[in-house]
Amino acid sequence: MSDRARRAIEECRTIAHMSEEPGSTTRRFLTSPVHQVHQHVRSRMESLGMSVHVDAAGNLRGLWKPSGESNRRFILGSHIDTVPDAGAFDGVLGVVLALDVVASARRLELPLSLEVIAFSEEEGVRFGFPFIGSRAVAGRFDAAMLGLKDSDGITIRQAIENFGLDPGKLEDAAADEHAVGFLEIHIEQGPVLEAEGLNVAAVTSIVGQTRLDLELIGHANHAGTTPMHLRRDALAAAAEWITKVEALATKTEGLVATVGKLKAQPNAGNVIPGLVELSLDVRHVHDSARRAAVDDIVEHAQAIATRRGLALDWSKKMDEPSVPMDERLTAFMTDAIEGAGFPAKSMPSGAGHDAMIMAGRMPTEMLFLRSPGGLSHHPDEAVREEDVEAALQVGEKFLQRLAAEIR
Amino acid sequence: MSDRARRAIEECRTIAHMSEEPGSTTRRFLTSPVHQVHQHVRSRMESLGMSVHVDAAGNLRGLWKPSGESNRRFILGSHIDTVPDAGAFDGVLGVVLALDVVASARRLELPLSLEVIAFSEEEGVRFGFPFIGSRAVAGRFDAAMLGLKDSDGITIRQAIENFGLDPGKLEDAAADEHAVGFLEIHIEQGPVLEAEGLNVAAVTSIVGQTRLDLELIGHANHAGTTPMHLRRDALAAAAEWITKVEALATKTEGLVATVGKLKAQPNAGNVIPGLVELSLDVRHVHDSARRAAVDDIVEHAQAIATRRGLALDWSKKMDEPSVPMDERLTAFMTDAIEGAGFPAKSMPSGAGHDAMIMAGRMPTEMLFLRSPGGLSHHPDEAVREEDVEAALQVGEKFLQRLAAEIR
Repeated sequence: MSDRARRAIEECRTIAHMSEEPGSTTRRFLTSPVHQVHQHVRSRMESLGMSVHVDAAGNLRGLWKPSGESNRRFILGSHIDTVPDAGAFDGVLGVVLALDVVASARRLELPLSLEVIAFSEEEGVRFGFPFIGSRAVAGRFDAAMLGLKDSDGITIRQAIENFGLDPGKLEDAAADEHAVGFLEIHIEQGPVLEAEGLNVAAVTSIVGQTRLDLELIGHANHAGTTPMHLRRDALAAAAEWITKVEALATKTEGLVATVGKLKAQPNAGNVIPGLVELSLDVRHVHDSARRAAVDDIVEHAQAIATRRGLALDWSKKMDEPSVPMDERLTAFMTDAIEGAGFPAKSMPSGAGHDAMIMAGRMPTEMLFLRSPGGLSHHPDEAVREEDVEAALQVGEKFLQRLAAEIR
Repeated sequence: MSDRARRAIEECRTIAHMSEEPGSTTRRFLTSPVHQVHQHVRSRMESLGMSVHVDAAGNLRGLWKPSGESNRRFILGSHIDTVPDAGAFDGVLGVVLALDVVASARRLELPLSLEVIAFSEEEGVRFGFPFIGSRAVAGRFDAAMLGLKDSDGITIRQAIENFGLDPGKLEDAAADEHAVGFLEIHIEQGPVLEAEGLNVAAVTSIVGQTRLDLELIGHANHAGTTPMHLRRDALAAAAEWITKVEALATKTEGLVATVGKLKAQPNAGNVIPGLVELSLDVRHVHDSARRAAVDDIVEHAQAIATRRGLALDWSKKMDEPSVPMDERLTAFMTDAIEGAGFPAKSMPSGAGHDAMIMAGRMPTEMLFLRSPGGLSHHPDEAVREEDVEAALQVGEKFLQRLAAEIR
């Protein structure tokens, strides 16, 4: 159907073999297969006439400069680290497509340079701390984080040095005042585009997120000798609450709320559960809607616990505000989607991305591609050729539109 | 308040020190502390003028024979094995009180002998197989069970031999045709008598029990990127079903239904649970009511799974019918309770007891004592002096009533 789309997919599958684990894809921050990826992507960058370097955070950066143009640059990119046993497209596809967009944009006589960044770290797997690469580029890498250790006791500082880089130069990785914007192309990692039969979407925002841990404390008792009305069953209480959480999220436009973790004690078939520990994850584009939902959900938990004679303990583990994408760039992207002949579609991102960090430093936008089965973080993660071709056409239109505004 | 009640409680606490684990009470079938218990109880039996022997199943048996009476005998007793880290009263109190009842019944000129049996095994802890002692007395011990092994690889046969007994003589342990009935005095192990402010109750029946294992199979997905209407959340489905189970049991008189075990996968805060495994325990005095409830509950699970696009797997792990106590003996017991000046109260037992096995061989009845806090199988398990005194008075009246009928 589309040669360049097929080639892009093959390129991602080739890079997927560069792994810490033969036979599966696991590529954490600055582990040895990252050298292979750098070598591979660098040669592609050089073949496009880009000047290439690796910054102190391990980001591979290629710069294409049109002849006679100023220092203004537009950045494209995504990350090349992966979760354990990952698919081939989360992150990497955004780097491969950025280079394809540069390849075709070279003939557009753009009034600005194009930089492609293969961010070194987004997933937070190795150091339990995500977005190391984009934090450095956004000038938000806190030197105190250099002391964080991986499971082998190696610090971020040592990992950078072991890779042949100089942690003393981290500040130089920050994008300067000439950077006018950032675009990240990424698979959706969710089922929305597939359900709506769409190829691509402009991203309006990265949703805000609250995480709670909760404990319902009842009383463990004999399942045979304790009549229903004399029970303080922590699991029955948890079940009532989970049902409420689901109902509330379903009736609130754009809200997702998930109880992903549940542990019952003593967890024996013939004992009424005395204690249940739960997690709650709530996300919404609008911080006020998210906070109101969390308050409501906690109130329900308290009311259910009180009515049943149970105690409730809860604590907030995360409370991250929503990060809006740049309105002007989002409008350009929606125009680009329509201009390339696809139905205009914009949507929030329910997951975090490098774009979330970059948005703190410069106007930022994302383009989503449909995820077959909504699947990600799994070896079966896939992408369709027609959607890759769509993303390439839209990316090109987007740069044209941007160029027209800037010129 | 009552010297004999206080002494009985002290006696139980003394026996609780005879343990496999110093500092806590753990006494499995035919382990070495059982020798201590036998020695201790035997000397009490002998002081009451009983003839004592240990049968091939390790049951300690004392027989008191009034002068000039026939071979007809009434049996009293309970078990002397315990769960790990047990309380002092589950089982043992029934043996201690049986001996106290014999002590006072000796002056009643009963027309029958009294046998007290300290059953060797009821809890099923050592061999994963309960009621070994009462099965032997009821003539229901299957020789094939002799090959069952404990966690050290020791068979029941070896355990019996190691204790100094002869497994070849197991059949001799069976009660003969002269046994006219059995009474087990036991703590309630539930909260009913405490909630109603009562000391004791006649037991009408051991409830029947069904146990199921269930699996709800949905689809694990990203908690941020999957909108509510595109989820197949196995935990939300499980929660809806648990709520139904509780509602159904609450509205059905005498039914208890418990989901005691729940395991969610992948059990991560930011992933929608794709799979949930659950247990179900349903008990009722009437087998038909229990079976109808189980059918209803499974239908609900199926309907919930279907509506949500999930699969349901389930299997029956246990299906034990209810065991009614002897109607005549239950009536005697109710009369005895009232005759001793306490409010008439009868109730089913939600837990299994040796009486369940003995009822297959001879007319059988149980007397329950209030359990403070409904607590059992726990070091804090307790019993109140006034309830022990009540049980002794009722036990004596019961034997009087029985004697009056038999004479």
